[in-house]
Amino acid sequence: MTDRLTPLLNVLKGEFGDRLLTSYAVREQHGSGESHLPPALPDAVVMVRSTQEVSTLLKACSDHRVPVIPFGAGSSVEGQIHAPFGGISIDLSAMDEILSVNEEDMDCSVQCGVTRQTLNEYLRATGLFFPVDLGAHATLGGMAATRASGTTTVRYGSMRNLVLGLTVVMPDGEIIKTGSRARKSSAGYDLTRMFVGSEGTLGIITEVSLRLFGIPETSQTAMCSFETLEDATQTVVMAMQCGLALNRIELADILQMQAINSYSKSDLPESPTIWIEMTGSSVAVQHDMEVFEGLAETALRFEPATTAEDAARLWRLRHDAVYASRALRPGIKGISTDVCVPISQLPGCINTIQDVIAKTTILAPLIGHVGDGNFHLVLLYDPQDPDEARDAQMISKELVEMAQSMGGTCTGEHGVGLGKKAYLPAEHGPALGVMRRIKHALDPLNIMNPGKIFDD
Amino acid sequence: MTDRLTPLLNVLKGEFGDRLLTSYAVREQHGSGESHLPPALPDAVVMVRSTQEVSTLLKACSDHRVPVIPFGAGSSVEGQIHAPFGGISIDLSAMDEILSVNEEDMDCSVQCGVTRQTLNEYLRATGLFFPVDLGAHATLGGMAATRASGTTTVRYGSMRNLVLGLTVVMPDGEIIKTGSRARKSSAGYDLTRMFVGSEGTLGIITEVSLRLFGIPETSQTAMCSFETLEDATQTVVMAMQCGLALNRIELADILQMQAINSYSKSDLPESPTIWIEMTGSSVAVQHDMEVFEGLAETALRFEPATTAEDAARLWRLRHDAVYASRALRPGIKGISTDVCVPISQLPGCINTIQDVIAKTTILAPLIGHVGDGNFHLVLLYDPQDPDEARDAQMISKELVEMAQSMGGTCTGEHGVGLGKKAYLPAEHGPALGVMRRIKHALDPLNIMNPGKIFDD
Repeated sequence: MTDRLTPLLNVLKGEFGDRLLTSYAVREQHGSGESHLPPALPDAVVMVRSTQEVSTLLKACSDHRVPVIPFGAGSSVEGQIHAPFGGISIDLSAMDEILSVNEEDMDCSVQCGVTRQTLNEYLRATGLFFPVDLGAHATLGGMAATRASGTTTVRYGSMRNLVLGLTVVMPDGEIIKTGSRARKSSAGYDLTRMFVGSEGTLGIITEVSLRLFGIPETSQTAMCSFETLEDATQTVVMAMQCGLALNRIELADILQMQAINSYSKSDLPESPTIWIEMTGSSVAVQHDMEVFEGLAETALRFEPATTAEDAARLWRLRHDAVYASRALRPGIKGISTDVCVPISQLPGCINTIQDVIAKTTILAPLIGHVGDGNFHLVLLYDPQDPDEARDAQMISKELVEMAQSMGGTCTGEHGVGLGKKAYLPAEHGPALGVMRRIKHALDPLNIMNPGKIFDD
Repeated sequence: MTDRLTPLLNVLKGEFGDRLLTSYAVREQHGSGESHLPPALPDAVVMVRSTQEVSTLLKACSDHRVPVIPFGAGSSVEGQIHAPFGGISIDLSAMDEILSVNEEDMDCSVQCGVTRQTLNEYLRATGLFFPVDLGAHATLGGMAATRASGTTTVRYGSMRNLVLGLTVVMPDGEIIKTGSRARKSSAGYDLTRMFVGSEGTLGIITEVSLRLFGIPETSQTAMCSFETLEDATQTVVMAMQCGLALNRIELADILQMQAINSYSKSDLPESPTIWIEMTGSSVAVQHDMEVFEGLAETALRFEPATTAEDAARLWRLRHDAVYASRALRPGIKGISTDVCVPISQLPGCINTIQDVIAKTTILAPLIGHVGDGNFHLVLLYDPQDPDEARDAQMISKELVEMAQSMGGTCTGEHGVGLGKKAYLPAEHGPALGVMRRIKHALDPLNIMNPGKIFDD
């Protein structure tokens, strides 16, 4: 590798000048991310500014057979930006131009380094917005590459549903465009959906076209406490079947509520809790909120927000949940699990894993996108304590295996990266072989983010 | 080919007995479909009953390097079921079992030969339904393979959005399962979306898992006439931006309205017309219908259906539009165009092509899924008349090229088959090469529906 690296770095120095960075600090920042995994540093970082530059870089890396790892905001949690085989980290964060917004067609086109926050600020005057709202300050290119989702996915879908088209640089430097601005198409293979979620293993996404939506006329929020998880999820099932105007529906368990009360100095009931947000016309929202209150007959307490400030307060409690969790064990980052199961399986899945957790010393508060059947446990363990480390791994593994046995998936929205790789054979069976054949056909030299999703 | 065919037929005779059919009548039926293209007959038809049988058949065809063409209901319009290189047509229509319905999770699993009508009848007692409602009596496997959509796609999305997972038999007979019952997943490449729309060129879909939805509490229908197409589409743009509870929004042009009046003995205004259907709670529907009426300030006439029977009458006029079109020239089937463009481009696209049409003798009524920017012209030409045939081809070609230049696609929902193949290089550019590489990687012998989507 070193043999191949030096001549490549000479080429890149000529092409990119001082935008080729090799300092330890920069490499460490680019090889860590938000993951609990130990860092794995690239040999160098290149700050690119255009699709053409990405093409130049990939061609050079291809010629020298050196790995390439795309980097956006560094917010991935499963080691997607790690460089286990070294190579070049392409930092795409400077590709942050909003290329076009078409208000009539409710779509836009952005460079991959634009964050969702930047896009939504830009859109404010138009009355339109882009709905995928994950917790991280992620780039839209990274969100596409990881098939990200968030609290409003129950209403609008994930990146899978909302990307209209992509510009992608292939391993040999070829630039392709997938999809179109048409809302739907039956014109050949759905390459857009193939690159969405491919985590930089097939090509590098440099531009993203997205669907936009009108900001709803009104929104209303409520919190709802239940005695049991079954009562909570059964209410959600009924609400989903009724097609209520749910924009968000989020679940926290008892430990999470305790953590929130402790962290936020709040006085919420410490029992399984649902936050809901309805959006739409005033009459529809009011009607649907009343229907929901009627459906939630097992609720211990139903607390609608009375003002916009009150709604903001309730959602801030939800959004701070991860910090509240970590505050249960200061200095500990934890593993964030990410299984997604059919909603009917949610109480069984949660109760079973909580029984497993109870036999250990691990604290594991739960927060989830209950309308999608996706939830996160933050497994708070001390990496220096081998017993805790073993227990945390055991819980994570048992949870994934249970989710898969229930018809679910090991990752609802975080992606595979390095962290979930071991679970794909059980989840996909022989279909994993088909994925490998696609990988091999499109990246025969295996330079694109090698070691992610599957081993070569 | 004949050299390879005879030993294969001997093998298949042993495996399938009298479910191997070689009569001309059966082969003709399986090599025609609803397409305007001349028939191209397979050498034999095999009626299969299970995924395992499809596997056995594909393995045999692979061993003998004989083409395989999947056949569901025979409703495809672009020659997807044609056998330009002969081979075996696999008739999947007997695989018509509904395997499971999960009411709480609002999903189901069916064999590929189940039609959407059969599924919805089966679901009636559950209060759930499957929304994709194309005109044809198609199978759900065929709808997945063609990435089909329909009038409710503006609300629920197309087959692309609503398939959760698939069972697919690969060319060598290997059986794989894609996706899961989870609502979302980031676990590797989106093989489900790769097979959806692949038209049998990569593998044969034998089972389909689908999302279901609760039947809305109420629905309300209206028809709305405008002086110009611009007025009509501008109203649609505003309605889409407001996020109204539109379930369907369909457009017809003047000639289509004349055809409908003539065919259905109705007395509707012969001007650009929109049908809308709102669904949801009573209060939301009533509110949104009032908002729509307010937005439609340029409308010449706004006619809400006053009863369910009246609504059914208005939608029957819409659904009979294709028959009304054909009745303008009895005995003529016509080419159905299928472009899809950004909605802002719709008036320009339609007006320009109507100017082109006006210079010919071709009648071409227009009906469209205006909320998606997708519309169909039925180009009524006499295939025996070389001038008309040339003009029809010219109109079709000019329309596609214009749609592509507007950021649209040659096919919104009918697929590529044989009929749209020539337009893919312009639409996809070098991305078509990526599709070919995937095809070659997964079907190296090119036995899967060869000649469809692209030439070898």
